[in-house]
Amino acid sequence: MNRKPLVSIIGAGMSKFGKHTGLLTRELFAEAASEAFSRCPKLQPKKDIKALFIGHMGEAYEHQGHTASTLADWAGLVGIPATRTEAACGSSGAALRSGIYAVLSGLADVVMVGGVEKMTHRTTAEVTEYLAMASDYPFEQFHGITFPGLFALMATSHMHNYGTTEEQIAKVAVKNHYHGSLNPKAHMQKEITIETVMSSRYVAWPLKLYDCSLITDGASCIILTKPELAQKYTDQPVHIIGSGQASDTIGLYERKSLSSLQATKIAAKAAYEMADIKPEQIDLAEVHDCFTFAEIMAYEDLGFCRPGEGGKLVESGETYLNGRIPVNTSGGLKAKGHPVGATGTAQTYELYLQLTDQAEKRQVKDAKIGLSQNIGGSGATAVVHIYRREK
Amino acid sequence: MNRKPLVSIIGAGMSKFGKHTGLLTRELFAEAASEAFSRCPKLQPKKDIKALFIGHMGEAYEHQGHTASTLADWAGLVGIPATRTEAACGSSGAALRSGIYAVLSGLADVVMVGGVEKMTHRTTAEVTEYLAMASDYPFEQFHGITFPGLFALMATSHMHNYGTTEEQIAKVAVKNHYHGSLNPKAHMQKEITIETVMSSRYVAWPLKLYDCSLITDGASCIILTKPELAQKYTDQPVHIIGSGQASDTIGLYERKSLSSLQATKIAAKAAYEMADIKPEQIDLAEVHDCFTFAEIMAYEDLGFCRPGEGGKLVESGETYLNGRIPVNTSGGLKAKGHPVGATGTAQTYELYLQLTDQAEKRQVKDAKIGLSQNIGGSGATAVVHIYRREK
Repeated sequence: MNRKPLVSIIGAGMSKFGKHTGLLTRELFAEAASEAFSRCPKLQPKKDIKALFIGHMGEAYEHQGHTASTLADWAGLVGIPATRTEAACGSSGAALRSGIYAVLSGLADVVMVGGVEKMTHRTTAEVTEYLAMASDYPFEQFHGITFPGLFALMATSHMHNYGTTEEQIAKVAVKNHYHGSLNPKAHMQKEITIETVMSSRYVAWPLKLYDCSLITDGASCIILTKPELAQKYTDQPVHIIGSGQASDTIGLYERKSLSSLQATKIAAKAAYEMADIKPEQIDLAEVHDCFTFAEIMAYEDLGFCRPGEGGKLVESGETYLNGRIPVNTSGGLKAKGHPVGATGTAQTYELYLQLTDQAEKRQVKDAKIGLSQNIGGSGATAVVHIYRREK
Repeated sequence: MNRKPLVSIIGAGMSKFGKHTGLLTRELFAEAASEAFSRCPKLQPKKDIKALFIGHMGEAYEHQGHTASTLADWAGLVGIPATRTEAACGSSGAALRSGIYAVLSGLADVVMVGGVEKMTHRTTAEVTEYLAMASDYPFEQFHGITFPGLFALMATSHMHNYGTTEEQIAKVAVKNHYHGSLNPKAHMQKEITIETVMSSRYVAWPLKLYDCSLITDGASCIILTKPELAQKYTDQPVHIIGSGQASDTIGLYERKSLSSLQATKIAAKAAYEMADIKPEQIDLAEVHDCFTFAEIMAYEDLGFCRPGEGGKLVESGETYLNGRIPVNTSGGLKAKGHPVGATGTAQTYELYLQLTDQAEKRQVKDAKIGLSQNIGGSGATAVVHIYRREK
């Protein structure tokens, strides 16, 4: 807990999440970059920023790859090393990890890390197909299963092993929509009731329409530097004190358990050890609720409760804004939206706001330590980071 | 020149480049990984390797993204952080840069870096379309121009500015096919004459069929560690002493010059300065000859000759195996083949063989310092690395 931070965040930006008809990916990202620059007026972006890492999942959406160089140009940074990282929905979590490597390497004192996805101009069928590329082609996609089905298999396993109920799972949606109603940048800003979730149509049993996160356009970014340089740029840095990333088999069929994500457990262990922190010391977390059930699994894999007790944890209300450990105060992927490449650094953006007392209506009181968990696909990638406020 | 190396290469592997009908990307990569492990028998891969970075350009070829986790699994490394980097044809050059950051960061003492692409199961029209995603959608792709056209524009500009001839450009193909004939892992292992090149059909004037690199399946990888740990693993490490990466506008239409690549110049300057090396000290180089003309531009941008003199340099024979500065002794992208994601670390593989005296028939005598230049698309990414033999 008293260890030296790895790196410090000196600025962050996020576009409104939602439907951005007529904007290109590059234009959306420029909006996020512009906010990050405005939050760090002492930074001279073109002079100071030495590398860019961009999480971007799909080239199919705009028939456009080679994203990072393009975004460097649109953010006014043309010339700097610019690298796209792709780890499915964990793409910008992986970008953050890469940015941390770069700052620690000594080759780049200040780096920008971000993510972006433009999805809503495609049909739901197209998006479902593009997303499916993050699962196993020969043994999953080929047989017609897509992500709702893969997470439904995991939910079913959890229900079987622990007695988790559809109602408990639905409560994640109710909570996150409540949080989203307090976030002016969330895609969906209205509360829903448990009846709305329970009566929505099944997508893949036991997951219903309101158990699924949103197809959203959005961009997010943060600016990192060495802890010893942070004060040069801002009085309110947020420090990253732990970082873990792990992989797992791409196919569910090769895993020992479907009720937890091994990659999250490995990444969390690494991040907790590096930060010298225990799960009980986390004040708030942004976790990867691509489906409501995934949040329940995250509670357990991150150590917020014991295995099998995730359903009870959400039921207890303790993960609400004013609970013991608020989870997804941003609204999460469920209500804020899930522009896949942007999600990892959007989690970091929320924690940056919270740990600098800028989260307004959804501010968590006395929040000192935050955690983000970003996963790729059905968990073949997991990235966990731990954050600490300046004072 | 006497500066401490950034990192050291302790093993390298490469699949045969060519047509691998029936193999998946992951299987091809496992072949390269297996060779790298066998070249470094003291390494315990599962225990020692702490991160994997994979250059992979296109998810469209196999409808498969999330590549790095999958390859980690197939290489026997499941669990470690695994990140795909994409910078078009410079994807594994960018992966190498990311791997260097990781080793220097202190978070990962030993990392694997590689790249892979499986292309030949697709039609030429499909491959052309997938590759085009690395150029600008709204202002290039949309209007029907693909990569042969973009490089033809650059070649035309060079011919106009400097009087470079089609025959000079064709000589790059003749040289690289000669080198490829000496490389048992090259896709094309036969010599060609200048008449073959000159009489082949135009793809995009002035570039003809034999000016284009090959659509190829292949994988490559290297294993990096800290210089101070290298001797623990091998008596023959190869050191990386300079690294540069840069970006440029994705569209040609925004650039000041079409006769050179600004990103190569920036990346080369950074790498030379870091290594404290001048271009004259380079003993051999692997450069990005996606089209023959690109090699001529590379000579100039890397400082092997003055601007405009690249045509004369190839004509002089000095870039042949026994010349003053042998270029693309592997056969280059032109004859060895260009499985796009694999190309960057395949260049490094060749330099590793050369600088450990394992290049057999194409061994460059007394080679001490090597350079690789890997570009993405039409040059919106460039990555340059400089290598030094152990003794």
